[in-house]
Amino acid sequence: MLYMVQMAVKKPHDIDSDIWTDIITREREYGQTYMKNGQFPHIWRVVGKFANVSIFDVESNDVLHQILAGFPLFPYMDIQVTALAEHPSALKK
Amino acid sequence: MLYMVQMAVKKPHDIDSDIWTDIITREREYGQTYMKNGQFPHIWRVVGKFANVSIFDVESNDVLHQILAGFPLFPYMDIQVTALAEHPSALKK
Amino acid sequence: MLYMVQMAVKKPHDIDSDIWTDIITREREYGQTYMKNGQFPHIWRVVGKFANVSIFDVESNDVLHQILAGFPLFPYMDIQVTALAEHPSALKK
Amino acid sequence: MLYMVQMAVKKPHDIDSDIWTDIITREREYGQTYMKNGQFPHIWRVVGKFANVSIFDVESNDVLHQILAGFPLFPYMDIQVTALAEHPSALKK
Amino acid sequence: MLYMVQMAVKKPHDIDSDIWTDIITREREYGQTYMKNGQFPHIWRVVGKFANVSIFDVESNDVLHQILAGFPLFPYMDIQVTALAEHPSALKK
Amino acid sequence: MLYMVQMAVKKPHDIDSDIWTDIITREREYGQTYMKNGQFPHIWRVVGKFANVSIFDVESNDVLHQILAGFPLFPYMDIQVTALAEHPSALKK
Amino acid sequence: MLYMVQMAVKKPHDIDSDIWTDIITREREYGQTYMKNGQFPHIWRVVGKFANVSIFDVESNDVLHQILAGFPLFPYMDIQVTALAEHPSALKK
Amino acid sequence: MLYMVQMAVKKPHDIDSDIWTDIITREREYGQTYMKNGQFPHIWRVVGKFANVSIFDVESNDVLHQILAGFPLFPYMDIQVTALAEHPSALKK
Amino acid sequence: MLYMVQMAVKKPHDIDSDIWTDIITREREYGQTYMKNGQFPHIWRVVGKFANVSIFDVESNDVLHQILAGFPLFPYMDIQVTALAEHPSALKK
Amino acid sequence: MLYMVQMAVKKPHDIDSDIWTDIITREREYGQTYMKNGQFPHIWRVVGKFANVSIFDVESNDVLHQILAGFPLFPYMDIQVTALAEHPSALKK
Repeated sequence: MLYMVQMAVKKPHDIDSDIWTDIITREREYGQTYMKNGQFPHIWRVVGKFANVSIFDVESNDVLHQILAGFPLFPYMDIQVTALAEHPSALKK
Repeated sequence: MLYMVQMAVKKPHDIDSDIWTDIITREREYGQTYMKNGQFPHIWRVVGKFANVSIFDVESNDVLHQILAGFPLFPYMDIQVTALAEHPSALKK
Repeated sequence: MLYMVQMAVKKPHDIDSDIWTDIITREREYGQTYMKNGQFPHIWRVVGKFANVSIFDVESNDVLHQILAGFPLFPYMDIQVTALAEHPSALKK
Repeated sequence: MLYMVQMAVKKPHDIDSDIWTDIITREREYGQTYMKNGQFPHIWRVVGKFANVSIFDVESNDVLHQILAGFPLFPYMDIQVTALAEHPSALKK
Repeated sequence: MLYMVQMAVKKPHDIDSDIWTDIITREREYGQTYMKNGQFPHIWRVVGKFANVSIFDVESNDVLHQILAGFPLFPYMDIQVTALAEHPSALKK
Repeated sequence: MLYMVQMAVKKPHDIDSDIWTDIITREREYGQTYMKNGQFPHIWRVVGKFANVSIFDVESNDVLHQILAGFPLFPYMDIQVTALAEHPSALKK
Repeated sequence: MLYMVQMAVKKPHDIDSDIWTDIITREREYGQTYMKNGQFPHIWRVVGKFANVSIFDVESNDVLHQILAGFPLFPYMDIQVTALAEHPSALKK
Repeated sequence: MLYMVQMAVKKPHDIDSDIWTDIITREREYGQTYMKNGQFPHIWRVVGKFANVSIFDVESNDVLHQILAGFPLFPYMDIQVTALAEHPSALKK
Repeated sequence: MLYMVQMAVKKPHDIDSDIWTDIITREREYGQTYMKNGQFPHIWRVVGKFANVSIFDVESNDVLHQILAGFPLFPYMDIQVTALAEHPSALKK
Repeated sequence: MLYMVQMAVKKPHDIDSDIWTDIITREREYGQTYMKNGQFPHIWRVVGKFANVSIFDVESNDVLHQILAGFPLFPYMDIQVTALAEHPSALKK
């Protein structure tokens, strides 16, 4: 089941740089866990922003929330979730 | 799996009244089908508006879209879907 | 009498973590008091956000405000209240 | 129990003028019924707009919706309802 | 001459609590001065918010600004002013 | 007493051109009545729009509404009123 | 080069149904041309709306505009284009 | 003196196609007059929209308004004007 | 050449009060320089806000930006500029 | 390939002034690198704001993001990117 997730990072200008570096490092590792298991098939950078457009493929709303709330950057992101369905014009599911 | 669905009806002022009456009649019948089978457990009227707040309980995003797109009022509604997850403070699932 | 209440938590990034942990602990206890007495029948997590959609069932606007203003997180939340009425298509009250 | 209700009239430019005159006439009579019985204690015109700010004093959300949905102008208005509570600084209830 | 004034308080999370308590105390005294002299006939709490809907009855825009700018909370509030006129459907002025 | 009034004209594309021409003609005459008597001291065109920024100088909110509601274009305009006060840095009142 | 394109269809309620059916038929054929040649790799339905989220993979802004402007539904759609770049956390380009 | 002008065309779906074709033809001729005389040095299409971003180089706000208000599409466009100044980092004026 | 300039001051709650007092003092002196030379003919306070509506009369966009960017409060203001043109209904230029 | 890029600087009021001066100095040098190589052909100041409207001419979305993300002010800017295409009315490409 697919969802579009739009994440925009809001970095506090006065956050400690070591703390931030650590968060970013863990963010990548965390995200790649779900990229590798197929639940996070797409991520694209929005040009000009510290933001992304992502596609998640998970079995339920609850699983999606657990994944998103676990991101190390979760407290610093504005996240918008859009539930997606199969489009009748798509060539294949 | 739960979703909050907010529907606001935009009635064209120049629509034929018989056509509109027919749509409204079929709308109720259609909605009650899903209320009875448990997929549409809650609907509340928003005070002061031709709009509602609804809760749907369905197995997937695709099923939700099929139900919503089938409403006779679908072409005349602005619909917002919010995916919901279990809240950690809730007394029971 | 029903209301939809949408609460979004805005955690200050530089708040003391012990203070915050204490607030969150008291928040759950506070909320559950009203869940148990029937005035707070539903709470759902909004997927991807530190936010919820809640339903309150109270006897007046004043009682609702007293409950909401008493939440330990009240100073850190953006709250939207929507007055609800019975929907004519609902199967039962 | 008090509510602020903000009503903005959206008159279709191509509506029949006799129909509109009739609606406006009935609107006043309808509104005055509730002004006289005490449920509609205040109405003010918003300067520069075909809109008003009103205060309703009714016993429930359902009663408020029934009154508002009964206005002859209801299909032509955008209505916003704000639930009000007693303010702690007010001199008297 | 009437105005609707909507005030929303934005409390900085890191403000000194004694300073804040002092501001709130003076705020009530200040507001009640105008409630007693008839220039501030109504104030209602917006349910779920640290905000109010108020009605002022003063002789000019300048007097209204002087009163509003004198509120101890003025630097911490977002204020919206709406000029009101007599409504033709009102029972009496 | 001063007000800034912003008027934006929304011309229906299918309105009869003779009716429109008549409205525009009467609009100018109407506006100039108040320009000449000093209640409408300034009007400027917003570059690129069928809209204006105007300053009115009238004795009350009610008088302002009566003037604005009397404009032949009133049903076709979106009007925003901003109450103005004397600025402390102004050279003279 | 990737773009997210969000298309929302605004069907006029009084459009001739045969004309509309023809547009929809041609829309699918037109879209599938680009799905088959690889320039339109993804399309998803937004749940609850006559809208989609699409991904285009084309060589330039000009080619993207030519494809979008050629859609039979183009005059009836609100389209938002977001330029995408490779995300540093993506597993592979 | 430079201005950015953003024009978005709002074509009424029920406008006569011959009238529209005539407007579009005259629009191009009109625009090219100012492109050739140097007052309209840049125009770009916004990808995915019937809209453009334009740069005008004229001697005053009044001249800009006269040019914009003369566009045959003026009644069907939403226009936003942004006054521009020389940027201190630009290589040359 | 005229412009409407809307300035809203955003005072940081934790700014040093001596620094702020100095900025405000210099702000008045700076503004009055341009009021006296005729480039800043009008300034009005927006009722209920730390904001103003101003009219500038300068020879170019560049001059306007230089004046605005030189205000001591410039870093603390949100400024909106609207280019104005002569209105055809105005009594005189 | 052209893009309009709108950059608005959000300077934190409590940032160290030496750090800020250094960022601004490097910003100019960085920007001029791309102005000189032809990828950043236009930059204009938005009158009244610490913001600009820029035109970039680069070969891909990825190159544009790399340039934008490399600006020393990137963490302090709100950036909006609009993909542009050739306009059919333009005199020449």
